[in-house]
Amino acid sequence: MNEIRILKTSGKARAGELNTQHGIIKTPVLCPVGTQGSVKTLTPQDVNDLGMQMILANTYHLYLRPGIQVIEKLGGLHKFMNWHGAILTDSGGYQLYSLSKLRQINDEGVIFRSHIDGSQHTFTPELAIKYQESIGADIIMVLDECIDHNESRERVWEAMVRTHQWAERCLKAHNKQGQALYAIVQGGVFPDLRKQSARYLTALNFDGFAIGGLSIGEPKSVTFDITEQMSALLPTDKPRYLMGVGAPEDVVECVERGIDIFDCAMPTRVARNGALYTPTGRVDIENAVYKEQEGSIDPTCHCYTCQNFSAAYLHHLFRSKELLAYRLATIHNLAFMSNLVQAVRNSILDGTFDEFRKKFLATYKTTDENTRINQKQKWLEARQKDTLD
Amino acid sequence: MNEIRILKTSGKARAGELNTQHGIIKTPVLCPVGTQGSVKTLTPQDVNDLGMQMILANTYHLYLRPGIQVIEKLGGLHKFMNWHGAILTDSGGYQLYSLSKLRQINDEGVIFRSHIDGSQHTFTPELAIKYQESIGADIIMVLDECIDHNESRERVWEAMVRTHQWAERCLKAHNKQGQALYAIVQGGVFPDLRKQSARYLTALNFDGFAIGGLSIGEPKSVTFDITEQMSALLPTDKPRYLMGVGAPEDVVECVERGIDIFDCAMPTRVARNGALYTPTGRVDIENAVYKEQEGSIDPTCHCYTCQNFSAAYLHHLFRSKELLAYRLATIHNLAFMSNLVQAVRNSILDGTFDEFRKKFLATYKTTDENTRINQKQKWLEARQKDTLD
Repeated sequence: MNEIRILKTSGKARAGELNTQHGIIKTPVLCPVGTQGSVKTLTPQDVNDLGMQMILANTYHLYLRPGIQVIEKLGGLHKFMNWHGAILTDSGGYQLYSLSKLRQINDEGVIFRSHIDGSQHTFTPELAIKYQESIGADIIMVLDECIDHNESRERVWEAMVRTHQWAERCLKAHNKQGQALYAIVQGGVFPDLRKQSARYLTALNFDGFAIGGLSIGEPKSVTFDITEQMSALLPTDKPRYLMGVGAPEDVVECVERGIDIFDCAMPTRVARNGALYTPTGRVDIENAVYKEQEGSIDPTCHCYTCQNFSAAYLHHLFRSKELLAYRLATIHNLAFMSNLVQAVRNSILDGTFDEFRKKFLATYKTTDENTRINQKQKWLEARQKDTLD
Repeated sequence: MNEIRILKTSGKARAGELNTQHGIIKTPVLCPVGTQGSVKTLTPQDVNDLGMQMILANTYHLYLRPGIQVIEKLGGLHKFMNWHGAILTDSGGYQLYSLSKLRQINDEGVIFRSHIDGSQHTFTPELAIKYQESIGADIIMVLDECIDHNESRERVWEAMVRTHQWAERCLKAHNKQGQALYAIVQGGVFPDLRKQSARYLTALNFDGFAIGGLSIGEPKSVTFDITEQMSALLPTDKPRYLMGVGAPEDVVECVERGIDIFDCAMPTRVARNGALYTPTGRVDIENAVYKEQEGSIDPTCHCYTCQNFSAAYLHHLFRSKELLAYRLATIHNLAFMSNLVQAVRNSILDGTFDEFRKKFLATYKTTDENTRINQKQKWLEARQKDTLD
């Protein structure tokens, strides 16, 4: 259980099979985000039909609502949300950093206030494991300390050391058979700290290794460089998970650098803001050019949305704030990502990954920085309204 | 085309078949509301799978957004929204009364400002017909003048007379083959005016007759009395449509009074507020009693929602404001209404309607007035936020 079998490589890129309690996951794999036990707008059946094999849920959110004991009583998260595929839960480390208020961290754990009602709570490495065991995910994560990407080296070092200590405590606390526990490499943007972190954690008996603290505001070249460095340091016989990545182009770039597992709220989140993926880049469906467009948003796409609705209709639904808009856009973006990841995998298997990657990156126009910033703004607003994922 | 064939009656209640350009509609029929060309949260496929045969869309909304010419260019509303069943469009009369601003009515027509951007527009009976012909619905409505239920008799009479004149102009303007045109009986809560209106309009060659100006705040007994009176005055060989009704109990009560066609935003709107129909009445899924309920919200229900999710999960989705909540609740409420209307029809056909009706009304606890008022308040807020249907 929990092993990865690498079937083929292309440079550092790997195509494999990851064994979980809920089936064999073909890697590389992208996990859509179901923070609160729901991939926003979709039923579990939809998620499955889109070819998704594993979703990510967040311990922090589920702990606060509906509460761990409710999920446990209802038979675990798989049963609660009626999802038969694999689940990966983040420990709460990142959400304690990004969402909660009045956080106090010490070596013991984290005291925080709920972003929902301000109530006070404590997370420790041991509790993070206990909660994740109750939730019953196939892959669970150690509690880590996350910090801003532009913190001082001293501060990054301190958080890294604490993350290491917590990782050991998590490993000791974990005793649920069959459930994989992954460590999280930290060390910010400092290659020597990253190396230190990878060395420390890979000496311990984790089922897999995640790269944390990236894609949180640092330049993209840094994300890619650290990812590349990490892959060289992580064991080849264990799965590698890049947390919180990514955009279509980032997934391709980071598969090239040796990543097996991705999770990202972006495809679903930008969908709800009307940003739809196409082979030539992201488009804004609310743009007036789509007002009367009879064809689908992406004529090459076979998803339910593109097979049934014109760009004009989607444009109308978004302009009218119809709830169906968010669902149809989410279906399209996840279909796009599902197809992309499958094509990446197939190209590794048949030895054409390098061509595929070059062609994709040459065709897919990366979303410019202004759009990203605008997107981030919308997300921050959504976060305040408690509608984020 | 457009005839109704009455297969069986039970007292005043009728079970029949209504011939439309998009198939034969089994009556009584309830049309879910797709104001802006979308039954909120659902795909057309969902609506069809729920057993719905005809939906209602609003000329007023579609005129403002995306615009009649866009729908026409995209091949009409059926094609635009990819709905293969029948469509009924309201003329805009009711929305001009309830939604638009700075309305000026004279015998020629209505000058109004858009509730979206304040821009000025004009509707006349001739334009209302022209727009509805472009939209391409199977059943279209005359432009009528709607007023408050507590207006003076004088004012009600005035609006009624204007509605009659406009109805004649609509009849004259209408020349799309196969598309049915229904008149709207007005006259407020005054039986003599209602009688006058029914006499006037039934003398003209309309394909069907609607009862307008009810269920807008008057006591329920009045709604039922006027409906009963109307059925006695409307021709038996043409379809009868009670606009804007209704709640489960109202549908049963008004089928008993001879109605064939209903439309109502209530099942979908209250669903989005967490009010779910059950055989014993409406329940509020956000109530704490559902926090850990393992069974579905209605164990007798075979809808997708009840077959796949616990009440506890729905409770969690609503409390967490997850978009999936609104979809699952909408599916359940429309399934409930679909089953109810089918059961009503079957009971008329097999001669047991009276028993069915008594049993249903004895079991189904009508939502109390306070809840209704609270519901109305939520709706008014939604209206201000432009998220209503």
